Amino acid sequence: MLKATMLTQDTGILPEFTLSDTRMSELLETVHQISDLQSLGALADWDQNTAMPGGAAEVRGYQQASLQGVLHERWTSPRLGNLLEELYEDVQQALFTDADRGLVREAHRIYTRAAKLPRKLVEEIARVQASSFEAWRNAREQSDFALFAPLLSRTVSLQREVADRLGYVETRYDALLNEYEPGMTVSKLDKLFGPMRETSKTLLKRIETSGNTVDDSCLEGKFSKERQIALCERLLRGMGYDFSRGQLAQSPHPFTTSFGSPFDVRVTVRTHEHYIQSSLMAAIHEGGHAVYEQGSAPTLVRTPIAGGASLGMHESQSRLWENAIGRSEPYWRGQYIAVREAFPLHYADVEVVTFARALNKVQPSLIRVEADEVTYNLHIMVRFELEKALINGDVVIETLPGLWNAKYREYLGIEPANDAEGVLQDVHWSSGFGYFPTYTLGNLYSAQIFHKLHAVFPDFDARLAEGDTAFVLEWLREHMYVLGAIYRPEELMMHVTGEALNPEYFNHYLTNKFEKVYGLSAIEQK
Amino acid sequence: MLKATMLTQDTGILPEFTLSDTRMSELLETVHQISDLQSLGALADWDQNTAMPGGAAEVRGYQQASLQGVLHERWTSPRLGNLLEELYEDVQQALFTDADRGLVREAHRIYTRAAKLPRKLVEEIARVQASSFEAWRNAREQSDFALFAPLLSRTVSLQREVADRLGYVETRYDALLNEYEPGMTVSKLDKLFGPMRETSKTLLKRIETSGNTVDDSCLEGKFSKERQIALCERLLRGMGYDFSRGQLAQSPHPFTTSFGSPFDVRVTVRTHEHYIQSSLMAAIHEGGHAVYEQGSAPTLVRTPIAGGASLGMHESQSRLWENAIGRSEPYWRGQYIAVREAFPLHYADVEVVTFARALNKVQPSLIRVEADEVTYNLHIMVRFELEKALINGDVVIETLPGLWNAKYREYLGIEPANDAEGVLQDVHWSSGFGYFPTYTLGNLYSAQIFHKLHAVFPDFDARLAEGDTAFVLEWLREHMYVLGAIYRPEELMMHVTGEALNPEYFNHYLTNKFEKVYGLSAIEQK
Repeated sequence: MLKATMLTQDTGILPEFTLSDTRMSELLETVHQISDLQSLGALADWDQNTAMPGGAAEVRGYQQASLQGVLHERWTSPRLGNLLEELYEDVQQALFTDADRGLVREAHRIYTRAAKLPRKLVEEIARVQASSFEAWRNAREQSDFALFAPLLSRTVSLQREVADRLGYVETRYDALLNEYEPGMTVSKLDKLFGPMRETSKTLLKRIETSGNTVDDSCLEGKFSKERQIALCERLLRGMGYDFSRGQLAQSPHPFTTSFGSPFDVRVTVRTHEHYIQSSLMAAIHEGGHAVYEQGSAPTLVRTPIAGGASLGMHESQSRLWENAIGRSEPYWRGQYIAVREAFPLHYADVEVVTFARALNKVQPSLIRVEADEVTYNLHIMVRFELEKALINGDVVIETLPGLWNAKYREYLGIEPANDAEGVLQDVHWSSGFGYFPTYTLGNLYSAQIFHKLHAVFPDFDARLAEGDTAFVLEWLREHMYVLGAIYRPEELMMHVTGEALNPEYFNHYLTNKFEKVYGLSAIEQK
Repeated sequence: MLKATMLTQDTGILPEFTLSDTRMSELLETVHQISDLQSLGALADWDQNTAMPGGAAEVRGYQQASLQGVLHERWTSPRLGNLLEELYEDVQQALFTDADRGLVREAHRIYTRAAKLPRKLVEEIARVQASSFEAWRNAREQSDFALFAPLLSRTVSLQREVADRLGYVETRYDALLNEYEPGMTVSKLDKLFGPMRETSKTLLKRIETSGNTVDDSCLEGKFSKERQIALCERLLRGMGYDFSRGQLAQSPHPFTTSFGSPFDVRVTVRTHEHYIQSSLMAAIHEGGHAVYEQGSAPTLVRTPIAGGASLGMHESQSRLWENAIGRSEPYWRGQYIAVREAFPLHYADVEVVTFARALNKVQPSLIRVEADEVTYNLHIMVRFELEKALINGDVVIETLPGLWNAKYREYLGIEPANDAEGVLQDVHWSSGFGYFPTYTLGNLYSAQIFHKLHAVFPDFDARLAEGDTAFVLEWLREHMYVLGAIYRPEELMMHVTGEALNPEYFNHYLTNKFEKVYGLSAIEQK
């Protein structure tokens, strides 16, 4: 257990485990060791993404496989199993804390899951993942899907086997969804996503037919990599990301990872020399993930409930910071000085209003991570539908690039010219399926939380405009981040916002925001 | 087992294990997994040295401790023990290979060692090491030994406990020496080191009284970090270091490490803006370690006999490349163009003879890693004697800076002005004791191997001067590197040079070289 003196956050009362119960203390000792090993696997993955030489891919695959083998062995140990079975009911008693209950619930879930998957399968998945990442990187560089197809095919069949072994009620894909967002199913998602898809499509059409445009030429130019990185660092610091417990690196696909939250939480961005938006928005997006992880209570460290409550909740924070805050004019009123100081020649004559507006240009485009808020979820729908089809066995791998391109034409009216800007753009399928829907789910969560923040702070925009974001971080830490994964996502939403997830918040948010940006008449909507 | 197609070296016949023997194949499966886990620990250590944020030190300590716990558990498993006890004799039969025998010998040694150390102790050592590294880094930055003393004291007592549990015949320090150089003892070292110390001291006196000097002002100036790193990269490539299986990074203390030799072998250097020698010679030194590791047969990957035969043999290669080759005029005749192209203004008017000569300036100095070849071993003697005293219990931690300074006055005639350039300069004591003598041992080995190389290649110098070092690497790979740790150091020396270690080679090498550099009369020596 880390010392209380390491607590660097003023978060009031911290969640605590009941160490006086010998079963809880044995459970903690066990999960501490497992979490430590898991952190080393995450570190190996970070290294592979940011530094590892290509020639090490195969041997790294073996290392990850051996580690997964040990983890599997630990999670399926009969002693741990008995302990969890015993605690599963008992922990509901009043003498236990919410942290105890959260830990037992999460550990029980992982234990049950592990028991369903044979060790050989788990090792094989780890081995394939490492090779698959290299194959993806290579295929993307050469823009040739055929180089990735054999490993993708292997991943699909492994993931189908996982789904079948884990079990599901309705569709096979549900089993994988549940891995990333416990309790989520396709039919629940369809209900949540349906109205959102309609809102996005309607809004896009209204914007396109309005004839109004947003000029984003101020985001183009020549921006040195070094200065972009320095600017990202400054914005991250401004958000409250703590570099003494983190680091900023570069990778082909931006991501956040953690090895022992809240004490080591790292982010990456990628830079484009001629377009500043990519690195900046990636920094704020990953920064959102990272401040969530760094805000997790130090008392939860080295347990499976340190960090975020689910991937969807995680994406809610990355997207809250990136979009709701990071693409708002008030935010840039407070932060624009950093951009101007980084690129004085370029931005001397660009007004902050122009800059903030440029970040909200709506235009169907090919690359998801660079999409605007209106079209973003349509990118996710493409992936969601293809993933379901892949896992449920309705498509052949070789036809994927064609299907991808057709979906882009259907949803966004445009088509990739090559695989790199099409089916190969995302890293995710080198490791598994079921992740993408959590992005859209995150958007839905985030709008509801953003609404709550405005209710709590009537002067929200004014404070942002003064350069203050600390009050946002502080409130989120206290009401959400510090709790880690003690509560299930739906419980956490109740705790944070006082009501269950309601997708209407997002639809309102999106419509209102872009009616303003594009000067659409609200009446026209009817 | 890695695929044979991954073999990128033209090394003729590779060592092979007898997989048809079921016990050997079970042993291999076991050590593969252990080696994989060990590699993740090495990766975590690399990360801590090159990237990890300071706030993660404590949690990293726990991670290393948990990993060491698992490794200990694996090494002490009764099944592995029985297998090794059985194979220990049987493997001597003709049907087994030298690789089999090497693996069984080394695995048996580690297993026996692990059995003597309780898991709790092993975990505690890992935990203390991670904190100790941070304490050392901090203490060195602030040049304040008191900040490091408590953790050093803890390390000393842990290492003494290790030594006592491992056992020894003559002195407690022998037990630790044996960890780094199997079979080595203080009394053997004293015999080897005695004449060397006298040679060094005599030579130093002759140089000092000769009145002849070496001008090394050409190594001083203003050298941008980026260009130094680019130059180091170029020199490493020139040596045959393969970047597709490696990486160059920066750290407070230069080092080489490997996660799955020969497929992932990484080096670090540190740069000084005003002095070019540090980074260049560190690159060649670490490059020597690295080409040794990268030359290890791919068939040995994921076993404890991949990589180098011992630390002493390892240092023989770093010092062969750094000193015997890398500080020679012929080498720089072949490579100087790289220096000139990196720093054209600075080196346009500096002749290669002047540059190479500058690298051989003899001058008692305070920093070991920057010492010349004549005084280098005296730096080691200081550490060797203090280590023995610390482990044998003859000194109190608090008196260490004073003792250090007194020894520097005695051996080198100079005294550090502060702890950073004195007792805190080396990272080694943050993890253990017994490493330093292997540097001097490496010098002894290297001179004998260097002599052999000259015997094999009468045109050695001429080829170096043409910019060719590939023939050296090729010969060393074929006769030494490819063998990994199949043979014990003493057997390997026989195999490589045809005779047992003879310290006279080093004494001759040193005397001859510096008589030339300083224009000393050979007769004067009598």
